[in-house]
Amino acid sequence: MQLGSRKNLKDRLAPVLGLIHRQELAEKLTELQQGTSDTLAAGVEHRQHQEALATKLRRLHPADIAHLVEMLPPEERSLIWSVVPDEVGGDVLVEVADSVADGLIEETPAERVVEMCRHLDPDDLSFLDEFLDEALRDRILASVLDSQRSWLETSFTYPEHTVGALMSGDMLIVNRDATVRDTLKILRRRESIPEQSDQIFVVDARHRLKGVLPITTLLLHSPSESVVEIMETDTMAFTPEDEASSVGKAFERYDLISAPVVDSRDRLIGRLTVDVIMHFIREEAEEDLLNREGLRGDEDLFGPVFESARGRWLWLFINLLTAFLASRVITVFEGTIETLVALATLMPIVASIGGNTGNQTIALVVRGLALDQIGRENMRYLALKELGIALINGAIWGTVMGLVAWGLYQSPMLGVVMGVATLLNLIVAAAVGIGVPMGMQRAGRDPALGSSVILTFVTDGMGFLIFLGLATALLI
Amino acid sequence: MQLGSRKNLKDRLAPVLGLIHRQELAEKLTELQQGTSDTLAAGVEHRQHQEALATKLRRLHPADIAHLVEMLPPEERSLIWSVVPDEVGGDVLVEVADSVADGLIEETPAERVVEMCRHLDPDDLSFLDEFLDEALRDRILASVLDSQRSWLETSFTYPEHTVGALMSGDMLIVNRDATVRDTLKILRRRESIPEQSDQIFVVDARHRLKGVLPITTLLLHSPSESVVEIMETDTMAFTPEDEASSVGKAFERYDLISAPVVDSRDRLIGRLTVDVIMHFIREEAEEDLLNREGLRGDEDLFGPVFESARGRWLWLFINLLTAFLASRVITVFEGTIETLVALATLMPIVASIGGNTGNQTIALVVRGLALDQIGRENMRYLALKELGIALINGAIWGTVMGLVAWGLYQSPMLGVVMGVATLLNLIVAAAVGIGVPMGMQRAGRDPALGSSVILTFVTDGMGFLIFLGLATALLI
Repeated sequence: MQLGSRKNLKDRLAPVLGLIHRQELAEKLTELQQGTSDTLAAGVEHRQHQEALATKLRRLHPADIAHLVEMLPPEERSLIWSVVPDEVGGDVLVEVADSVADGLIEETPAERVVEMCRHLDPDDLSFLDEFLDEALRDRILASVLDSQRSWLETSFTYPEHTVGALMSGDMLIVNRDATVRDTLKILRRRESIPEQSDQIFVVDARHRLKGVLPITTLLLHSPSESVVEIMETDTMAFTPEDEASSVGKAFERYDLISAPVVDSRDRLIGRLTVDVIMHFIREEAEEDLLNREGLRGDEDLFGPVFESARGRWLWLFINLLTAFLASRVITVFEGTIETLVALATLMPIVASIGGNTGNQTIALVVRGLALDQIGRENMRYLALKELGIALINGAIWGTVMGLVAWGLYQSPMLGVVMGVATLLNLIVAAAVGIGVPMGMQRAGRDPALGSSVILTFVTDGMGFLIFLGLATALLI
Repeated sequence: MQLGSRKNLKDRLAPVLGLIHRQELAEKLTELQQGTSDTLAAGVEHRQHQEALATKLRRLHPADIAHLVEMLPPEERSLIWSVVPDEVGGDVLVEVADSVADGLIEETPAERVVEMCRHLDPDDLSFLDEFLDEALRDRILASVLDSQRSWLETSFTYPEHTVGALMSGDMLIVNRDATVRDTLKILRRRESIPEQSDQIFVVDARHRLKGVLPITTLLLHSPSESVVEIMETDTMAFTPEDEASSVGKAFERYDLISAPVVDSRDRLIGRLTVDVIMHFIREEAEEDLLNREGLRGDEDLFGPVFESARGRWLWLFINLLTAFLASRVITVFEGTIETLVALATLMPIVASIGGNTGNQTIALVVRGLALDQIGRENMRYLALKELGIALINGAIWGTVMGLVAWGLYQSPMLGVVMGVATLLNLIVAAAVGIGVPMGMQRAGRDPALGSSVILTFVTDGMGFLIFLGLATALLI
């Protein structure tokens, strides 16, 4: 019995990894190099090795091959990609991260890409659209069936983040005049039932969606019953223009497995399934995380060094610029620092605590916005709450830091400056931490993106200004 | 036709929000206060208002009520909670964030909680376990059916993050001796089919799992066929001890809708469904995000101010401590700064750029570890790559900053100090950004948690040390 045989991914990948890594890989690579220049016998042996690898790969699920490809450095990646059977290659391309797919398609001869795509169903093919150049796309379109071509051409027109780009054309449809018996007949006539089919869509003569028929309902009724009598009409339908992320929330909220996609006249044009939505949500969450640190969302962990280095320049430049601008504040007070050099030691603490606290507020606000928990009605409450927290914590921890500064430098007035500056910068941090993501959202931009940079810029600059300003006023 | 009627959440919540917010709420609250002290007529009117609200709530999906409850400040939240019908209250408790559920249960009389829980199925009930105190749990256990009690008692024993705590006991089971006809009969005899039922589990006389029968397969075969002939045996099964997060990856990877849970002897004991898994993954991702900023994962956006303030003390303390320790480095060089006060202006730039760059590396490594893309085999490659990036970018941007410093202060040597310090601190940042999350992972801890604090501590401290140290050696 094979039950549970797919459970442990590591165990399944181990034999393949064993084939690839270390000695075996090293051997293969030398053989590969020799094979081109050396004897014919070496070439034959090399091909035998390749076939052994291909056999092992054939036993893996495409998602597992994708995982394997993603975790390999460039050379090993190319090696294994060259032996991936064409019939699963397309599925692997669909499963790997965007930047990896991009690289793989680039290094693959056009014929092979077309051949791989021939094995994909149109929905999966439409995923690959963004990586194909004009010429390759035309060749692929020419190689598919006419019925698939029109679907693909439609699907290609929708932007990446919409339902239209994620929907599938493969679904179970029945006419409203049908009975349960007719429906079963239609199902049995099909070659295969699409994956994730939990319901059959009921349409009228003009292909307008009239209701859905859960497959389990179908099982429980007698063959003579009419479909319209047992179908459900209180169902969710989406349009191709809907944002995939908000549709994802609906899938999660109402525990959907599949949902119909209709056009503006309620005509059924496609189907959305939970696996695609889940995949989309997960990828988006990961991209968000990296975007927040100023990285490309699909940064390839094992991609080329120089490309990765260059990918980080914009962010480095912005960071250097803001750090530089914030530090300009200090220049104004160089005279003060010369008189009391302890200020140079204490000022980074004030700046740093503001940045950290503000980032907490940003994280909360960004999450609240993402979950639609923050609206115009409760925004004021939230702002007052965060300012209240800043006031309480600023008073407590400002006092602590004030006492420490007093103790260290034997100057009660320096303690006061330290304490008040800490309190004020925490309030600045709370205000910016609330205001910046909210403002970004209002301006129609991603509230997470760049909020942190602006915050750190303000808390650094204001931290220096408040602390050195107070010191100049009270101490000098 | 109601098709698509559930699509726009905001539109659906608006009438309820209208009832609650602003004027109407203010009215209700005064009525509420008057009702207790004032005339009987006011009391009757107040009750009518409450019923209008309850009627509106009854039309909403429990997930929508949960959303509403989450986005309300404390007073409004209590008001609406008091009118949530008991028969959906349990579902609402299951749907809201943990900290919100905690608060709601605390403010609800024990009788009402028990009544609400009576309407829940055992799987949902087991979710609430963590919020119930001993006494309440016993009362609830006493109120449920015997058959449910034993299920609950088993389910309560599994830790929160395991399959055992998330699995459901409600599933479709058929004996291996059955035919398709028998199976259909069993299904029709049931009151209802469990949600997310895409397959029927086939067991032997000892209740050991022998295979699964997709419902769509059932539709396509004749009544006389035997179940064992058409069932699938290459299916995934989990054990109650499996970690829910790794099971979540399997669900996503293999596009599962449901999967059987078996004990060590392959006996079928429960079922796991994609909706529960999706919910778990989403909640865990959100908690992770907040944890990284030192916040409680289930921090309630609209919870009490003082509690929230206190919840952030530990993190504030750690941040202050590390910032303070890093700044101690500066003390050593106070003499140098007194001689050349420009150093006080430039040193925060070196520290800041190290922190930002290192956080990028941490984000990449943490993601790679979470996706199982990083193993012992490719760790060295990854470390060399990040160090390479640091070297390239340090050389380029160090030169830029060096030229800027030279230009500003007319000192070529100060430019050299600035440039070299930037380069060196970027290398330190890359090393720490790789080393800390990897080390955390090896020590069996969450690699994301606290990595950033350690990194900032090191890049600040080392930034000051390298910059001021070089300045002392070369300039003074």
